Amino acid sequence: MTTHSTVERRVRAIFDDQPFMTILGATLERVVPGEVEIRLPCRAELTQHTGVMHAGVVTSIVDTACGAAAATVMETERDVVSVEFKINLLAPAVGDYLRAVGRVVRAGRTLTVCSGEVWAVSGDEARVVALMQATMMAVARVQG
Amino acid sequence: MTTHSTVERRVRAIFDDQPFMTILGATLERVVPGEVEIRLPCRAELTQHTGVMHAGVVTSIVDTACGAAAATVMETERDVVSVEFKINLLAPAVGDYLRAVGRVVRAGRTLTVCSGEVWAVSGDEARVVALMQATMMAVARVQG
Amino acid sequence: MTTHSTVERRVRAIFDDQPFMTILGATLERVVPGEVEIRLPCRAELTQHTGVMHAGVVTSIVDTACGAAAATVMETERDVVSVEFKINLLAPAVGDYLRAVGRVVRAGRTLTVCSGEVWAVSGDEARVVALMQATMMAVARVQG
Amino acid sequence: MTTHSTVERRVRAIFDDQPFMTILGATLERVVPGEVEIRLPCRAELTQHTGVMHAGVVTSIVDTACGAAAATVMETERDVVSVEFKINLLAPAVGDYLRAVGRVVRAGRTLTVCSGEVWAVSGDEARVVALMQATMMAVARVQG
Repeated sequence: MTTHSTVERRVRAIFDDQPFMTILGATLERVVPGEVEIRLPCRAELTQHTGVMHAGVVTSIVDTACGAAAATVMETERDVVSVEFKINLLAPAVGDYLRAVGRVVRAGRTLTVCSGEVWAVSGDEARVVALMQATMMAVARVQG
Repeated sequence: MTTHSTVERRVRAIFDDQPFMTILGATLERVVPGEVEIRLPCRAELTQHTGVMHAGVVTSIVDTACGAAAATVMETERDVVSVEFKINLLAPAVGDYLRAVGRVVRAGRTLTVCSGEVWAVSGDEARVVALMQATMMAVARVQG
Repeated sequence: MTTHSTVERRVRAIFDDQPFMTILGATLERVVPGEVEIRLPCRAELTQHTGVMHAGVVTSIVDTACGAAAATVMETERDVVSVEFKINLLAPAVGDYLRAVGRVVRAGRTLTVCSGEVWAVSGDEARVVALMQATMMAVARVQG
Repeated sequence: MTTHSTVERRVRAIFDDQPFMTILGATLERVVPGEVEIRLPCRAELTQHTGVMHAGVVTSIVDTACGAAAATVMETERDVVSVEFKINLLAPAVGDYLRAVGRVVRAGRTLTVCSGEVWAVSGDEARVVALMQATMMAVARVQG
């Protein structure tokens, strides 16, 4: 039987093995079956020309949150890859930090559909800045 | 009259003003009215857990290429922001470098629709690894 | 002041003026500010080759529900058009009838982002068969 | 060996078996490996409240064209279903008829990615009114 902590350990291992998340400065905040949260402190290096966090940064953390959420409900010996996703950028991503939450909407044997949200948090205020709909696929594990 | 080189100078100024593109190591390879190409050398820091370039990296450069392509056809005193985009990841993004090409499909007064492709290049071989469809919006310029 | 019943009357007028909804046999079930529900009895004429309701039918009713939801929060003298949408088909659309629900996620002056769901209902059972993320735009009213 | 005419016969059988295409009045114009074209005469019954062809109608024919294009490159004993798609509505869909073209961008064993276009044709003039990016899946054939 898979316990929640086993799931968390497995997802955390996948996350820690992603150099790009380290470059961004993202951390894994919460892992429960079907839902994962990632946090990213805002900083100047990650902005685009208008001074807000680059859409690619916003996308990177919520794609990762969705993929990790899919991984929580997949067979343990499979790997997860993003098939495709769509994101709406709703408001400028500015604040102290971003919170990306990925949730499983429907888990299938091969494909898992997830929805994701990104919140920009400034002090006590938070607002949704992006909305994602993503398709993840379980594939044979790549040997490290 | 706007000459091509004026367009290129304007888009290059926008690109150079994006710290996140510098972090990634992306360079602006080509700017013509309606089309922009960005190049990104592959390196370990930008990978995900399976060893390929992170989907967020692939997305970041093609979103930027689409936004820059939209900027080439917009009024010079407006700024461009990504409204939304959808990307299909077609194959693992591995190679010597990635080429992201953004093209304007339809330019409107407010909204401009672009399509983008990302190619992974290894020596003499190149293959499409991602396909994007994006909506960009012209907004009042943010003061720097 | 706009009352809810005014909103409902306005959205109902738009809906009743869509010949394609009549062809499909769709009805407007519920209109509240920010949310609209449409119902469609399943019938053989609307199926695709595998016997389930055609993806285009599923899309048509949830796009209409999202557009109508956007209309509930727009200025009364504007018209709404679909800019773009993305839909995931999660399960075969079979049952007694389909319920499409459109909700406003973020209302802007020009663009309104909506999310939509389609449920297939069979007797006492219901399940989500599709998930949509859509961008609607307020435009100058077209004269009839 | 599969000849082109065998492919066309198979796709035509799938198309003819879709009651919803008959309701719309759509016809299969062209089938070649990797590309399918559908034609739909514009008529008042298929419009939305602003007098243009309903976005759901536009979507229905280009989704069908993409699915049929995917079918041309799939193993003959499999069925095709739409996993998801995204469409941008670029201009009002008005004219004598619509032409929807679906093309395979990448054919995989399970998933096939397609791009689609819809053109509105009026006399000698044609313009692109919609752009689609779609993911199709090969599934075990449903018994009729």
